[in-house]
Amino acid sequence: MVIKNKKKTCAILIIGNEILSGRTEEKNVSFLASWLNSNLGIKIEEVRIIPDVEREIIKNILDLSKNFRYVLTTGGIGPTHDDITSKSISKAFKKKYSYNLEALKILKKYYGNQFNDPRKKMAKMPNGSKLIYNPSSAAPGFIINNVICLPGVPLILKSMIHNLKKYLRPGIKIFSKSINCQTVESKIAKDLGRIQKKHKKFVEIGSYPFFRLGKIGVSIVLRSSKKSNLQSCHKDIIRIIKNKKIEIIRGV
Amino acid sequence: MVIKNKKKTCAILIIGNEILSGRTEEKNVSFLASWLNSNLGIKIEEVRIIPDVEREIIKNILDLSKNFRYVLTTGGIGPTHDDITSKSISKAFKKKYSYNLEALKILKKYYGNQFNDPRKKMAKMPNGSKLIYNPSSAAPGFIINNVICLPGVPLILKSMIHNLKKYLRPGIKIFSKSINCQTVESKIAKDLGRIQKKHKKFVEIGSYPFFRLGKIGVSIVLRSSKKSNLQSCHKDIIRIIKNKKIEIIRGV
Repeated sequence: MVIKNKKKTCAILIIGNEILSGRTEEKNVSFLASWLNSNLGIKIEEVRIIPDVEREIIKNILDLSKNFRYVLTTGGIGPTHDDITSKSISKAFKKKYSYNLEALKILKKYYGNQFNDPRKKMAKMPNGSKLIYNPSSAAPGFIINNVICLPGVPLILKSMIHNLKKYLRPGIKIFSKSINCQTVESKIAKDLGRIQKKHKKFVEIGSYPFFRLGKIGVSIVLRSSKKSNLQSCHKDIIRIIKNKKIEIIRGV
Repeated sequence: MVIKNKKKTCAILIIGNEILSGRTEEKNVSFLASWLNSNLGIKIEEVRIIPDVEREIIKNILDLSKNFRYVLTTGGIGPTHDDITSKSISKAFKKKYSYNLEALKILKKYYGNQFNDPRKKMAKMPNGSKLIYNPSSAAPGFIINNVICLPGVPLILKSMIHNLKKYLRPGIKIFSKSINCQTVESKIAKDLGRIQKKHKKFVEIGSYPFFRLGKIGVSIVLRSSKKSNLQSCHKDIIRIIKNKKIEIIRGV
């Protein structure tokens, strides 16, 4: 990999037994990664999926928050006994785990006379947290130090995403171009390696085989923070593909 | 979490820029986790997704292989320049990165007179590796020490899964039961917490909200290595749900 932007990197920590057991397919990484890049130029450099276990949450929060500019967590901020993210992060940062008065007010207004203890729990978080508002189900996410806590349910997470924008400093946007062609990787591997060497300073070339309607193809993905370099690398690859009489597949 | 089975745990290391950039949705974790549990009683306790960067692969392989009984990697064992998993793992374990003669033979037979250099690269791996045969596209995975390397393409990975069975020592199978009901988490949170405390030695209870056709529901998932404890915990939950006149949703 050649695109370095160390100060802008971000990790995602997914907290949830349901993902590790295979019961639930993880759905937030690809959305968060695409959204963060296209809206803010922030790149995800690592993802971890860990269980709802306090010592694991604490260990990973401390490790990731030290090594990344931002850490996004998903999951574990609901009302049930297995939602232990907020409490564990309070312990990790040695902050008091207490009611956030603004969150309490929001939830009280939302639930009215149905504001019971489990719902109140959703207003408890590390002391000093700032809220990330939740337009769909009210219970807010929060940011403490460089850790941003979001819910695990994809629909709710998506509805909140714009409200965390103000807490993130934009980085350098990465542009990408894809070429999908009907070939096998080994037919173009040498040329791609050579072109990657030529453009190694500014462009990252990825090669991904795919199967579609019984056809084998390769998706070549170019990524760069500089549009002109992307364009020049793209031309080099198109030249190779045409020389080798490889068919380009459109609309894949 | 209460189900401890420390010696049987397993981590998955997903190697691929395409997952971190959001271009490709991760598809192997949920399959691998379900398959490993139902066929071998092996539990995934952590997943990491990292880029195609040598120093990251080395660091994570050394860390995970020390702390887990098994480490499964996916991705980066193809023929192109960005496939650097095998070489990086050789470096991590200080093994020579060289041709495996059996792999070379398999690939030579498969490709015939089209056995070019990029394809030959797929026979290179850490010296001393054992092969995991690949019935779909021939290029084998391999196992070295406690690290098992598989391809990233889900279709190919699935076709190889039975061939890694012989390298894994079975653990304790985890059984599960789900109850899907039409309620919100906060209405049952206190009772679930109480029931979890009662059964904490042998059953793990997870609570997951869902939205389906405009209806809000909660999926309560019980997991245990002991069927009788699972059954008894299930009864306790059903009792609460019936008492509260909550509707159970079937077929979700």
